[in-house]
Amino acid sequence: MNGAAAVSAGAGGGDLAWLEQVVFDAAGLVPVIAQSMDDRRVLMLAWADRAALEQTQRSGFATYYSRSRGRHWRKGEESGNTQRVHEMRLDCDGDAVLYLVDQQGGVACHTGRASCFFRRLEDGAWKITDPVLVDPATIYPRASA
Amino acid sequence: MNGAAAVSAGAGGGDLAWLEQVVFDAAGLVPVIAQSMDDRRVLMLAWADRAALEQTQRSGFATYYSRSRGRHWRKGEESGNTQRVHEMRLDCDGDAVLYLVDQQGGVACHTGRASCFFRRLEDGAWKITDPVLVDPATIYPRASA
Repeated sequence: MNGAAAVSAGAGGGDLAWLEQVVFDAAGLVPVIAQSMDDRRVLMLAWADRAALEQTQRSGFATYYSRSRGRHWRKGEESGNTQRVHEMRLDCDGDAVLYLVDQQGGVACHTGRASCFFRRLEDGAWKITDPVLVDPATIYPRASA
Repeated sequence: MNGAAAVSAGAGGGDLAWLEQVVFDAAGLVPVIAQSMDDRRVLMLAWADRAALEQTQRSGFATYYSRSRGRHWRKGEESGNTQRVHEMRLDCDGDAVLYLVDQQGGVACHTGRASCFFRRLEDGAWKITDPVLVDPATIYPRASA
């Protein structure tokens, strides 16, 4: 396998019947949860269209559809914090997907934190519980210029 | 605390300012990931409106909004497989919520499996990887009648 992620199609790569079982919403999107293989933290929730799922399966790297930018987006394409996908899972209704990933750099969030879910409800307020591990200015040098 | 879940509001329970920081979609909903406190498995993805989040915080039990039934739904209200919520988390954009739960009965999925994400993509097909732990007919006796 030469380190290829488990999701890679191998010899049967031309068959996309699995995509027919995914239920996309009216906008052609499905929510995708990214979870760390390492410590099982939930890292983020993003969206994928059919092409993003196909690209994820083909490449072994988490690909999403950015609703704000209106285009596909390979996680880490700017920051270098890619997500190697070891498993793709589908839920019972077919309308939610789970990626189990190795998070390059240990930072999934654009704020420089491990997970996007860095706020916890405590006494009726969202409290930040997680430290910034990497200065966002060093993750996105162009954006900060 | 007498066993009250960590999310309970306590003395400050009247203040719902935390709900103002949640970004709901055009339908007034936000996706909610339920993750097991115990083994960190992702159990399901469902949806909540403002009232469902408030009810979850007040009661300490996971409450959702069922898009198919068009009403609120306390997880386990039929099956008994409730979810005691220990943490509610919000992501960086405010448009996704994470419940960390104790899953009563160890079965979150209506198919009788631990998790709704019981299918894994293998060689271009979704393969069922998880066993049925409880006969669905015994979970939903009325539905099967």
